[in-house]
Amino acid sequence: VTINIAIDCMGGDHGLPTTLPAACHFAQANPNVHLFLVGKEEEIRQGLTQQTYKKDQITLVHANDVISMDDAPLIALRRKKDSSLHGAMNLVKSGEAHACISAGNTGALMAVAQVLLRTLDGIDRAALATAMPNSKGKSTTILDLGANVDCNAIHLLQFGIMGSALVSVIDGIERPTVGLLNVGQEDIKGNEVVKKASELLRQSALNFIGNVEGDDIFHGTSDVVVCDGFVGNVVLKAVEGLAKMIKISLEQSFRNDPFSMMLGAMASPTVLKRFKNSIDPARYNGACLLGVKGIVFKSHGSAKADAFECALNRTYEAANNKLLDKISQTVQQSLTTTAIEPQTP
Amino acid sequence: VTINIAIDCMGGDHGLPTTLPAACHFAQANPNVHLFLVGKEEEIRQGLTQQTYKKDQITLVHANDVISMDDAPLIALRRKKDSSLHGAMNLVKSGEAHACISAGNTGALMAVAQVLLRTLDGIDRAALATAMPNSKGKSTTILDLGANVDCNAIHLLQFGIMGSALVSVIDGIERPTVGLLNVGQEDIKGNEVVKKASELLRQSALNFIGNVEGDDIFHGTSDVVVCDGFVGNVVLKAVEGLAKMIKISLEQSFRNDPFSMMLGAMASPTVLKRFKNSIDPARYNGACLLGVKGIVFKSHGSAKADAFECALNRTYEAANNKLLDKISQTVQQSLTTTAIEPQTP
Repeated sequence: VTINIAIDCMGGDHGLPTTLPAACHFAQANPNVHLFLVGKEEEIRQGLTQQTYKKDQITLVHANDVISMDDAPLIALRRKKDSSLHGAMNLVKSGEAHACISAGNTGALMAVAQVLLRTLDGIDRAALATAMPNSKGKSTTILDLGANVDCNAIHLLQFGIMGSALVSVIDGIERPTVGLLNVGQEDIKGNEVVKKASELLRQSALNFIGNVEGDDIFHGTSDVVVCDGFVGNVVLKAVEGLAKMIKISLEQSFRNDPFSMMLGAMASPTVLKRFKNSIDPARYNGACLLGVKGIVFKSHGSAKADAFECALNRTYEAANNKLLDKISQTVQQSLTTTAIEPQTP
Repeated sequence: VTINIAIDCMGGDHGLPTTLPAACHFAQANPNVHLFLVGKEEEIRQGLTQQTYKKDQITLVHANDVISMDDAPLIALRRKKDSSLHGAMNLVKSGEAHACISAGNTGALMAVAQVLLRTLDGIDRAALATAMPNSKGKSTTILDLGANVDCNAIHLLQFGIMGSALVSVIDGIERPTVGLLNVGQEDIKGNEVVKKASELLRQSALNFIGNVEGDDIFHGTSDVVVCDGFVGNVVLKAVEGLAKMIKISLEQSFRNDPFSMMLGAMASPTVLKRFKNSIDPARYNGACLLGVKGIVFKSHGSAKADAFECALNRTYEAANNKLLDKISQTVQQSLTTTAIEPQTP
């Protein structure tokens, strides 16, 4: 079976110089993939002259507009209807692509996806979910990561349902454990929204284990961690910032004096490389937008080609595993059993 | 001049086995310090038999109650008036101690401090601030860290004023830069509270540089990072969790095979030790409760003796540098120039 993926080639901090090499390398590695490269056709054509690829794996789709990282989501949605993001999303809507991916403006991605693809029945808002490594050697799926800055308790419950469905599909865990991110484990902790969400999650059919704290993400206390998009975004970026600082600090430690440098030279090809890989954010690039009627992935805006390719791989896995059908099914089942009436935001 | 510090010896996950060794070691290192050890007198006396200390540096103060980590703040405040936390705080109130410190329940510390010591004129709520290392080799002061889970824009402005005052006193920076933690740098980003706070900070006399994101904490983009206590607490714990995971992962990398083990053995005493120290959360232990009429420090609940001693050192530095007088002065000046009317929460 051929998997068709639409790529917003213009999105992200780097645009074509990142997306094109990643796309071509990814296509070479996956012969059963067909890619729609969406964006300014002439620029893409120009960029492709420096890449190796099979013509029959690639279709160019012209889009005249480019949504910048600073564009307000609603402006991007309404005034840039011929954007590369709209183009990629429309290919999913029409069924020509099984999935799409963008490294661009998160708010715009969110808005365009919800308007063009619509949210799943019973889901009020889509949410971004990603996997982070934990000390159990597995991964913790956390959502939402920036799409929703003002959430109510029902939204958080729905994030729990969608996150649980994602993990059960991707990791094959039948009833993933779900934790609610809070400032303490005790029920009395947190703001009013979180306290109410905790009640709803406890009444639901989910495998809810209660409140978890920031460090539980990395302990792997629960398979899924639910939080609002403000908290999730800040936490994600903070841990990326720390991981980067630690990587640099380690490199400097091995440059401090001749003896350290010698040790560093010996350790670099093996131990340090392995270690750096284990904490490299690029390996965990690729967040899934859950809750819309289509498979949509978001790469980190600052991703380089290798990181963008990681996100492409995740997109491929999701499409190949029929993520959307399974998520929709699981969400419908959960909504039936939890019997929550969807609210307008 | 003798600096008098009151220690809540019963607080924290470990209590006396942590606080007593730290207190005695700290007293030995600082001959001009006098410590009030507050808690169950018999247990403290018993614990001290295993420690070395000068009798004239230590005064035992009995307190019958112990506030547990699970106690609701208001219950702890009202029903455990003879707690070791109350005792330590009362010594600050009476002027017998220049400062106090506890590793106990954060919510209770907050409540007891605000009721017994009162907030500074013009400040509605106290906030917990701590310093985190950044890649500029300096530190970023972040507040609030868990005391206030529901903040309005005025609270965030006041946190900015207090954080700026703290950094100017402690680090000697005349006009510290202040950033507001948000999900993007653009003004349009964030929830309503953050957008409003951004306006207030911009109109204030502070050296406000605008929104900062999670990774800016570790880039050192601003000297002070302002956020509500929910976000601050979750971020702090998440980065601690990641730092711990990375430390363990690095150790494992050097145990993978005989060659790695040999390199690890050679690197351990120097390079790796230096590196681990640079990311060790224990070195950054000790958050300052800003906004009350007294110097109050909070150690991490899980702190071991060496980390608790780090927090004791910070408490000493703050008292020795007359932090309270300087903060009060700076806050009054800022409030006059920013001319914000304090609101009730």
